Amino acid sequence: MKNNRKVVLFIAASLDGYIATKEDSLEWLYNIEGEGDNGLSKFYGTADTIIMGKRTYDWLLDQELESFPYKGKECYVYTRSDIPDNEDVRFARDNVAELIAELQEKPGDKIWVMGGSELIQQYLEEDLIDEITVTVAPVIIGEGIPLFREGKYHLDLELTGTETYNQFVELNYKVKRS
Amino acid sequence: MKNNRKVVLFIAASLDGYIATKEDSLEWLYNIEGEGDNGLSKFYGTADTIIMGKRTYDWLLDQELESFPYKGKECYVYTRSDIPDNEDVRFARDNVAELIAELQEKPGDKIWVMGGSELIQQYLEEDLIDEITVTVAPVIIGEGIPLFREGKYHLDLELTGTETYNQFVELNYKVKRS
Repeated sequence: MKNNRKVVLFIAASLDGYIATKEDSLEWLYNIEGEGDNGLSKFYGTADTIIMGKRTYDWLLDQELESFPYKGKECYVYTRSDIPDNEDVRFARDNVAELIAELQEKPGDKIWVMGGSELIQQYLEEDLIDEITVTVAPVIIGEGIPLFREGKYHLDLELTGTETYNQFVELNYKVKRS
Repeated sequence: MKNNRKVVLFIAASLDGYIATKEDSLEWLYNIEGEGDNGLSKFYGTADTIIMGKRTYDWLLDQELESFPYKGKECYVYTRSDIPDNEDVRFARDNVAELIAELQEKPGDKIWVMGGSELIQQYLEEDLIDEITVTVAPVIIGEGIPLFREGKYHLDLELTGTETYNQFVELNYKVKRS
């Protein structure tokens, strides 16, 4: 029984659809000037659960932040390895659909599918995404890690709105279900 | 000497960045309901010259339209073959930069780089594009012909505006030159 907890893909990408360079760098994204966080904090408050891939998690740890940036949220990290949970995240090895089903058994807010590329592809292929927000950065980087990997999926979308933050355009969609 | 004729990439793409299916179909695009032409006619009047690749041209002919759809515009088709010009188009085999230089010698309106994928890549790699408009369709198709092929280019853009037409979002950029 779904508790109407929406599974949301919320992510920034270059105009040519990359979420990072091949070396996992986001410098091209952070270098774009402007005040505020281009819509992130507005979305952040609507989600209480975050799902990410192991490579994204490792990238976060590599940033040498003072503390884990998503404290207070229920964080799941997908991995094929057997890693013990820690105070910040739980490691998940189940089928992605099973975790979503489990999360939707209990009441809560939105479930943020953060990335990266491989996890997003799995979620799309299993048709688990309810809402998609892509924040388009004003840059073309030529190559990198794609937001949407090639895959056997087709999703019809409903545009629910757009926002412009500095030079960024946020495109908001609901996934149409027939 | 440039006559300030802007070279514009104006094109529609799925949210995952495809301009057609692998079989050159645009059905996924035409199937999206809504009135009007989602900004095309507004742009169309600003360009007097169109450049397209041979595959795009062949695709147009395959549509069995009553007449060539771009009559009245100066149309160039890029090909590696030696094909005689006809009343609608001239075939170009020069380096892409040379044609642009030649067109910019004479006064005129915007030069529309229509596609497809291979031609766009060449124009981007040679840094010939001045303005980019991508009209994002509310659909993810999973695979197809990419708007932006992987390539050795990096373009910083300036967002000049957005428009929403039905379910389509038009993103307008100027290419920043340092």
